Amino acid sequence: MADSSNSTKINNKIYDQEIVVLRWGHRPQRDARLTTHVALTARALGASGFLLSDIVDEKIKVTIEKVTRNWGGKFFFEMGTPWKKAVSSWKAKGGIVVHLTVYGENIQTSDVLERIRNLRKPIMVLVGSQKVPKEFYSKEISDFNVAIGNQPHSECAALAVFLDRFFEGTELAKDFTKANITVIPQKRGKKTIVKR
Amino acid sequence: MADSSNSTKINNKIYDQEIVVLRWGHRPQRDARLTTHVALTARALGASGFLLSDIVDEKIKVTIEKVTRNWGGKFFFEMGTPWKKAVSSWKAKGGIVVHLTVYGENIQTSDVLERIRNLRKPIMVLVGSQKVPKEFYSKEISDFNVAIGNQPHSECAALAVFLDRFFEGTELAKDFTKANITVIPQKRGKKTIVKR
Repeated sequence: MADSSNSTKINNKIYDQEIVVLRWGHRPQRDARLTTHVALTARALGASGFLLSDIVDEKIKVTIEKVTRNWGGKFFFEMGTPWKKAVSSWKAKGGIVVHLTVYGENIQTSDVLERIRNLRKPIMVLVGSQKVPKEFYSKEISDFNVAIGNQPHSECAALAVFLDRFFEGTELAKDFTKANITVIPQKRGKKTIVKR
Repeated sequence: MADSSNSTKINNKIYDQEIVVLRWGHRPQRDARLTTHVALTARALGASGFLLSDIVDEKIKVTIEKVTRNWGGKFFFEMGTPWKKAVSSWKAKGGIVVHLTVYGENIQTSDVLERIRNLRKPIMVLVGSQKVPKEFYSKEISDFNVAIGNQPHSECAALAVFLDRFFEGTELAKDFTKANITVIPQKRGKKTIVKR
């Protein structure tokens, strides 16, 4: 996280709450594609980095770093750190932890997002995979337990909606610097600018 | 689709544009979990049904139908229909097709969502997986090509943001009727009402 700033500037709007995503419970075989999608979603929707906790999976690291190299922007990928250590060092630096869970406060029907914003602190979004440890719900770990609706769906979908709402949509207009590949949006077909 | 109505009532607001999701290019081994997440996202975020085109995958059908049985609401799951047939019969019934793709019109920087709404027609959201056929971009197939940002990420994330924006967040407060399991949102821990 050393190379990530404390504020995320998206076009002209400055969000002074940096967001990093911690993915817990990755199983290399079973979760390969899903974890890759979660990491790519974090990058594309304005997070500054991704932590794959407790495990090393070089294939995913290579995939994500290749996307960042080609598509631009600043995005860090870390892996292997035990989740508790990652959380405690984040908190030691003054960050807060938002655990996305179906059981949490509903982002639509509660004021939880406003309360998270009002703290104006860097945010670690904790997303699980298999059944998460009970501790995730404790005040020692999570500052907020947030539900993207209280129906079961997907950590990838939940992260996407959380980031889109947090950044108020501006993340989808974000400039990705030093990109080798840039898409020119089209009503039909594909148009890209590729730097060689 | 016969059992799906032409309007989706979410709490007090009526959205007269029904949304169904067509998932193309599913590979049973590799995509099992991802396709399951896409289907659960469709259900949890207000779509009325899911079509797994071109292929039959009983395991996913069983998983989704079990979730719908336990968590309530009306959600249909269909599979095996060739994608072209599904698209043409949808259009024959007066529906439009929205293809989610990184190359499309950016939902944040363009007025594409407004133009889709203004048609007030039932929407089939087409989400790919592997590289999609060129035809998806043609006017014979897609009425709109929409990008949830022009960076590569995930069909699951893209679908989630599209649905959350289309339904203006109300889908996350949707009542799921006849549920056996209902979550009572909590700041910490898990609270559910389970009917036996």
